[in-house]
Amino acid sequence: MIRISIDAMGGDHGPSVIIPGIQKVIERRPDARFLLFGHEDAVAPVLDRHPRVKAVSEFVHCEIAVRMDDKPSQALRHGRWKSSMWRAIEAVKKDEADVCVSAGNTGALMAMSKFCLRTMASIERPAIAAIWPTMRGESVVLDVGATIGADAHQLIDFSILGAAMARALFQLDRPTVGLLNVGVEEIKGQEDVREAGRMLREANLETMNYHGFVEGDDIGKGSVDVVVTEGFSGNIALKSAEGTAKQLAEYLRSAMSRTIMARIGYIFARDAFARLREKMDVRKINGGIFLGLNGIVVKSHGGTDDEGFAAAVELGYDMVRNRLIDKIKADFDRFHAGRAAGNRAPEAADREQI
Amino acid sequence: MIRISIDAMGGDHGPSVIIPGIQKVIERRPDARFLLFGHEDAVAPVLDRHPRVKAVSEFVHCEIAVRMDDKPSQALRHGRWKSSMWRAIEAVKKDEADVCVSAGNTGALMAMSKFCLRTMASIERPAIAAIWPTMRGESVVLDVGATIGADAHQLIDFSILGAAMARALFQLDRPTVGLLNVGVEEIKGQEDVREAGRMLREANLETMNYHGFVEGDDIGKGSVDVVVTEGFSGNIALKSAEGTAKQLAEYLRSAMSRTIMARIGYIFARDAFARLREKMDVRKINGGIFLGLNGIVVKSHGGTDDEGFAAAVELGYDMVRNRLIDKIKADFDRFHAGRAAGNRAPEAADREQI
Repeated sequence: MIRISIDAMGGDHGPSVIIPGIQKVIERRPDARFLLFGHEDAVAPVLDRHPRVKAVSEFVHCEIAVRMDDKPSQALRHGRWKSSMWRAIEAVKKDEADVCVSAGNTGALMAMSKFCLRTMASIERPAIAAIWPTMRGESVVLDVGATIGADAHQLIDFSILGAAMARALFQLDRPTVGLLNVGVEEIKGQEDVREAGRMLREANLETMNYHGFVEGDDIGKGSVDVVVTEGFSGNIALKSAEGTAKQLAEYLRSAMSRTIMARIGYIFARDAFARLREKMDVRKINGGIFLGLNGIVVKSHGGTDDEGFAAAVELGYDMVRNRLIDKIKADFDRFHAGRAAGNRAPEAADREQI
Repeated sequence: MIRISIDAMGGDHGPSVIIPGIQKVIERRPDARFLLFGHEDAVAPVLDRHPRVKAVSEFVHCEIAVRMDDKPSQALRHGRWKSSMWRAIEAVKKDEADVCVSAGNTGALMAMSKFCLRTMASIERPAIAAIWPTMRGESVVLDVGATIGADAHQLIDFSILGAAMARALFQLDRPTVGLLNVGVEEIKGQEDVREAGRMLREANLETMNYHGFVEGDDIGKGSVDVVVTEGFSGNIALKSAEGTAKQLAEYLRSAMSRTIMARIGYIFARDAFARLREKMDVRKINGGIFLGLNGIVVKSHGGTDDEGFAAAVELGYDMVRNRLIDKIKADFDRFHAGRAAGNRAPEAADREQI
């Protein structure tokens, strides 16, 4: 049994999308159980229409809902201790749930998650990881928005977190990890990125296979299982790719509806287009995972539909099932034990060419 | 007449792509004249097969060609004064050409361009601008790789350069300019980006309409005519979008060839797909423009074909035709005159909420 706490008020559509989303989850993950937090006026009527969800859920009334446009500071001021978002996160802290899922606003959710769950002792700052569909399957990309700028040590934290997530999700023993960088020879990357590269190569961790630098177009190629960067460029990479995907979908739609011949062609190729749409479906990759906290919190897109919300919940479910937090803790212990034991050779780093 | 100097040895394919590319340019821009720099053993035979190109070109033999994998320092050491790349750039400096085009390696080309042409007196560092196809047409995005990190003053330089380029290319009076940022509320962007935003809003330049912050997905939407960022995130945005475009083209190809029905559909919709391919054609957006030097240098993709190289040359041609350098100089003069006249009110900036 996996216990999932849900902020039923989060997102643009609230319970009217979230409850049907949960309905889809229980069809596919029958041992999932839910703790739903929200205002009873909003949640109870929808829950009554979904008796199967009701049967596997416990509902907790909360007076306050964090708004999508609340600033993190506002959300903390008004919503701490009592909002549906806070209570859903707190359920993880109290070990009443294994993972929390919310479609509420990212800034508020991160601020509350940090405040409530606290950052793991071994790392400096949490990160938001995304699952990125690639030509080879899927990759983990982090950080996509929790930080702005990251020094070499933080990039190494992110590498360890991302590798643990790839192991939990993709069932890999030793996922490949790349540091996102730029290709202009003259100025090959930020000093922090170079330094992190040297340290990762030198550390030669058994939990990951450090691949070296990757560029923006390597993400879609699936050149590595885990792409590591600080949150500013990670966020811009993610949104820029999303924008391009939408743009091309629009081109395709417009090209296929413009002439009679194209429309006839579309009818013949309908199944192919359906498969393509599925591949390009951003709902399926919905969900950013907060890594580095003492508990797992999954952020679903605010504007998603029931299928998208279900995907985010299932992501959380799968990570609990595959013991993500245990993996992360063990990996950091191993990393720090290795450093303490002094199997680093600083002079080797100086000689190394990256 | 527009005079264009060409590094005929640049790119993965050298003269065998470059000369046919020029052939295409003269069909569409009959008043273009060329100064070709390269090794005669490589260039002369191809030129003999293209008499129309030969008729509008002057050829200059150069012993040395910069290699695609030369580091900028190597290229400067071996190729200064005498390589085809150097001589092509130098032709602009000597006013023997109006613009230089090379498909050679970016780092070497930028290093040589800076060394030979020098950065404009009024700005600190040059930038590489890209033309990005959007749902609304095209936008200028800079910097996509010349810098790593940029302070507020450099971001303003980039804004003025980009706006001048948008005016020269898109025939706009007052292009809209946005600063690339991230949307997470809590940590809204880097301090330098916020500071540049305050300064741009306050300066209220007549050469641009400052729109505010934009996010990664706004680029493809065409929310603004000019997107400004430092080179690390700009390069990652560009490559990440390119990667996504390739990935989706591959999905499409595979979906349309998988079943008989899809293949029949493809035959009917052939024209639509041809138009789509044209829209997704990266060759057409080929070419990064070096801005902020005393002269225009256009960098074509190294792996491009003749059509792609022609597009890069035509970009250079159009910018000369529309007096890009004059526009840039006038804009900086106006900007600095405005600042000197003291029509800035620093205390207003402190009050302003962005």
